[in-house]
Amino acid sequence: MKIRQRAISLDLNSFFSAFFDKEVQKYMEYIRPCIASMKGYVPGLQPDPNQKYIKLNSNENPFPPSPRVKEVLRELKYEDLRIYPDPISLELREKLGSLYGFSPNQIICGNGSDDILNIIIRTFAQPGEAVGFFEPTFPLYRVLGVIHGVRIISLPVDEPYDQPPLPPDDVKIFFLANPNSPVGFAYSTSRIAEMAREIKAVFVVDEAYAEFARENALALVRQLANVIIVRTVSKSYSLAGLRLGYAIGNEKLIAEMLKVKDPFNVTLLTQSLVAAALEDQEYLRNNVSRIIDTREWFSKEAAALGYRIIPSEANFVFPQPPQKGRGIGFYKTLFNRKILTRHYDEEGLRDGVRMTIGTRQEMATVLKVMKEILPQFSNK
Amino acid sequence: MKIRQRAISLDLNSFFSAFFDKEVQKYMEYIRPCIASMKGYVPGLQPDPNQKYIKLNSNENPFPPSPRVKEVLRELKYEDLRIYPDPISLELREKLGSLYGFSPNQIICGNGSDDILNIIIRTFAQPGEAVGFFEPTFPLYRVLGVIHGVRIISLPVDEPYDQPPLPPDDVKIFFLANPNSPVGFAYSTSRIAEMAREIKAVFVVDEAYAEFARENALALVRQLANVIIVRTVSKSYSLAGLRLGYAIGNEKLIAEMLKVKDPFNVTLLTQSLVAAALEDQEYLRNNVSRIIDTREWFSKEAAALGYRIIPSEANFVFPQPPQKGRGIGFYKTLFNRKILTRHYDEEGLRDGVRMTIGTRQEMATVLKVMKEILPQFSNK
Repeated sequence: MKIRQRAISLDLNSFFSAFFDKEVQKYMEYIRPCIASMKGYVPGLQPDPNQKYIKLNSNENPFPPSPRVKEVLRELKYEDLRIYPDPISLELREKLGSLYGFSPNQIICGNGSDDILNIIIRTFAQPGEAVGFFEPTFPLYRVLGVIHGVRIISLPVDEPYDQPPLPPDDVKIFFLANPNSPVGFAYSTSRIAEMAREIKAVFVVDEAYAEFARENALALVRQLANVIIVRTVSKSYSLAGLRLGYAIGNEKLIAEMLKVKDPFNVTLLTQSLVAAALEDQEYLRNNVSRIIDTREWFSKEAAALGYRIIPSEANFVFPQPPQKGRGIGFYKTLFNRKILTRHYDEEGLRDGVRMTIGTRQEMATVLKVMKEILPQFSNK
Repeated sequence: MKIRQRAISLDLNSFFSAFFDKEVQKYMEYIRPCIASMKGYVPGLQPDPNQKYIKLNSNENPFPPSPRVKEVLRELKYEDLRIYPDPISLELREKLGSLYGFSPNQIICGNGSDDILNIIIRTFAQPGEAVGFFEPTFPLYRVLGVIHGVRIISLPVDEPYDQPPLPPDDVKIFFLANPNSPVGFAYSTSRIAEMAREIKAVFVVDEAYAEFARENALALVRQLANVIIVRTVSKSYSLAGLRLGYAIGNEKLIAEMLKVKDPFNVTLLTQSLVAAALEDQEYLRNNVSRIIDTREWFSKEAAALGYRIIPSEANFVFPQPPQKGRGIGFYKTLFNRKILTRHYDEEGLRDGVRMTIGTRQEMATVLKVMKEILPQFSNK
């Protein structure tokens, strides 16, 4: 009896499994194979706000936005929400243009710089053509490339980070995150100019963290037709919640990108509130210099404890405990101590974690914890 | 002397023209040919708010959003803007789910329904495969198809509108705007079910105007694995400025779409404010029924004047003056009288204009003007 029952249950299993496969197959035939086999971009964990974590996993700014944002938020007329936003975000582009000395025609706004990167890939790379980048880098370039059906040419970079390989020459777009994420190092503008001159491709410098760096590549837009600079207000302006990214480049390229973007890609509230934030450059400068000061102080202290920290030009650092390959353990131990960082299970990134620079007080707490847990990750 | 000068200037012309061509060529090699030759989606004119137009060109709702949106807007903490929004808009999906009786896993939110349509095309159609729709329809399907590099199979529909052709059977996605835009007619749910059953493709019912219609196809999601319903809060909830669209479909298809969307595609403010609006269903019902009443009254009055109006189930109508092919003249004459409508220079649409239903008072003014100008567009 027992044996028979088992036989039946096996049959049922295989029946259900065949049925399930068929069901799955039915759905799968609707889905592009490259999407079905793709993992998708994994954003940093957004913890329950009632749980008291020190949240250093998404490179958010620890300080509030400019008080002008508060004023404009209070003055907004809710009745206006019934109307579509300006499809071309003209006021914002004019403000950004006068801030940096460009015409609004050289600027496009997007729903975060993710939207801008998405628009870039769809404007300049034909499905089947190639796009390139160095790795480690911002993981979204690869995801967007897979979705768009382009070939991906990824070149590994390793230390010393100031000697990058030659960019590949058969790509349509090359993405350079500078300062790099998630490691934080930055190439000099003169090195970037050399790369951009050599390559026969649209050369995208993703400057999401530029406000925290010594240099930026904006001036190259005036010299080279193929350079596009991508920026965001998420980090430096403390406005990640609003979703506003922008690109600055040759106006002929920007004009084509404007055709590719979704018709109304930036909300009415985002346009108004970011405009207010852009007017308060003094607040931005103070905010950014506090973060840079904390970064430099934290880096020095962590190094004194025995952690390795590659000099960062962003609003985060990439601390590595003395023992190699212990990034995941380091991440988990910090997590258990209510410090949220980010670990990447990828080549070249397994030795450490990416850690946003929070307030001085938060980073003092982090240092205290890092001192306490250090023996678990020491070579001795 | 004169002749010589002319010769020189001709030479200079051709020199500059060659130079210009070379310059243009330099940029063009960066741009995908399908983008360079594309016109892009043209949004309705957003007039200077100081100019007193009756704005009936973008299907915006003439009434403000629910007062609850105002309350939540006042309570928002500007400090929270420093944090990224929930990447998967979970609260909104839960609210929409309990409103319509679906699991949050069957729902995806986007930056307007434009974003949702963009995600659909990139999830289900491989570049080189085909997508289909009837025309006239929402022009964005074609634009998104060109950008994604798919073949487009467009079938013309004409009167009588209740007898559509068979959808093509070699497409990966079929888009049906129901109620139709820009004409306003609607197919019955039973007819839609027939089409969706016949076709071996993802069948998208774009219900941007469903709240103004007698029927909707939401129930089909429970019966057919290939049906995806697309909705927006732009029109019915008076929230075009916030950009929130959503799709409801089989959770296996929605899961793949979630991988394709930009990581943080809906702003923090949009998530909070739309959640508030969704809670006020009574306001929605009253708002929508006022617009339907005005639409029915206006349609009857315009018909009594001598205009032709195809019965509409949306928040707009498509009035046609007695003389055929006079849509553009009708548009211009209304424009000169400070009434903004939309004209489409396309097959099947040249006889009239698309006109949003405004307030009763606005539509009374429009009727008055339509009566005065009628002799210009009469056959007599």
